[in-house]
Amino acid sequence: VKKSDRSDVKARLNRIAGQVAGIQRMVDEDRYCVDVLTQIAAVRSALDALGVELLARHVESCVLGHGSGSEHKCAAPMTKEELLEEVRLTLGRFLK
Amino acid sequence: VKKSDRSDVKARLNRIAGQVAGIQRMVDEDRYCVDVLTQIAAVRSALDALGVELLARHVESCVLGHGSGSEHKCAAPMTKEELLEEVRLTLGRFLK
Amino acid sequence: VKKSDRSDVKARLNRIAGQVAGIQRMVDEDRYCVDVLTQIAAVRSALDALGVELLARHVESCVLGHGSGSEHKCAAPMTKEELLEEVRLTLGRFLK
Amino acid sequence: VKKSDRSDVKARLNRIAGQVAGIQRMVDEDRYCVDVLTQIAAVRSALDALGVELLARHVESCVLGHGSGSEHKCAAPMTKEELLEEVRLTLGRFLK
Repeated sequence: VKKSDRSDVKARLNRIAGQVAGIQRMVDEDRYCVDVLTQIAAVRSALDALGVELLARHVESCVLGHGSGSEHKCAAPMTKEELLEEVRLTLGRFLK
Repeated sequence: VKKSDRSDVKARLNRIAGQVAGIQRMVDEDRYCVDVLTQIAAVRSALDALGVELLARHVESCVLGHGSGSEHKCAAPMTKEELLEEVRLTLGRFLK
Repeated sequence: VKKSDRSDVKARLNRIAGQVAGIQRMVDEDRYCVDVLTQIAAVRSALDALGVELLARHVESCVLGHGSGSEHKCAAPMTKEELLEEVRLTLGRFLK
Repeated sequence: VKKSDRSDVKARLNRIAGQVAGIQRMVDEDRYCVDVLTQIAAVRSALDALGVELLARHVESCVLGHGSGSEHKCAAPMTKEELLEEVRLTLGRFLK
């Protein structure tokens, strides 16, 4: 995660943490299960959107920026082939 | 959510909240994006598993138990057709 | 699948088969990968929507209609508990 | 899709078309809905795996290979930023 983008990622994660806390309250208050499910689906969508964003940034800063010296927290000693294989594996964890 | 099952749902949600907090720490510590993505995929799977569980319980206690008088926090004045339509909509929020 | 609903399911499957054939043509014609990916995502959504529909109908005709004598091609000697466990497993195959 | 990889993509698509034809037969034969659903989930997984593969190849040949002159059926006049935005949109179609 590049420094400049990190505050956006943090803001999204704070929102997601807040949504999860909201679901915990709903269960404590014994709310209708379908309403709980709707909230779970919303958190899932927010996580997916964050995943898409992080993966696109990873491709940008680590895979494309590979070897440019400017990359930030990229797995330095990897070849492009290894980086691509890692993208494939990571994608597969979301789409399985 | 039936009372007897609520402690299990709460335990799962606590675990999910803990996982989200862990991801927030990873971003604070500027960890490698692929590791963050792997954790996001794990939370997503945990949410999906919880969603499956809640939906199956909802079908059991509200749709099947409909009219038995024993249902707990079910949307009382719905017909079976309306309950099924709601199941369809809820499923659609996960699979879209 | 109830007889009355089968023609709708068949129509949807025909459309999905047509979409897959379209993707095969796109690959034969060496079309731009992103366009192929967009079509793959469309087939996936169509399959998900069909899955939601079939699962809701299954709950309606086999789980709810259980023991009514009117059920059609339901796994006859199952108890409601077994049917619900099967719904859970089936959902888990879509959300994993 | 690069020419050298195209036969693999075609083989996968043939298998997927065969699976869809199999589901059509199951519906014609009025098979148990849960078995149909299991097959639908299998096709969905096969499509996802193909999507992951195509997206990784796209990143490799079009995004990384951008400007190298060797790219094959890539959207030539796009900048890297546009290519990345397109990756983001495409990913979002699978994870929404």
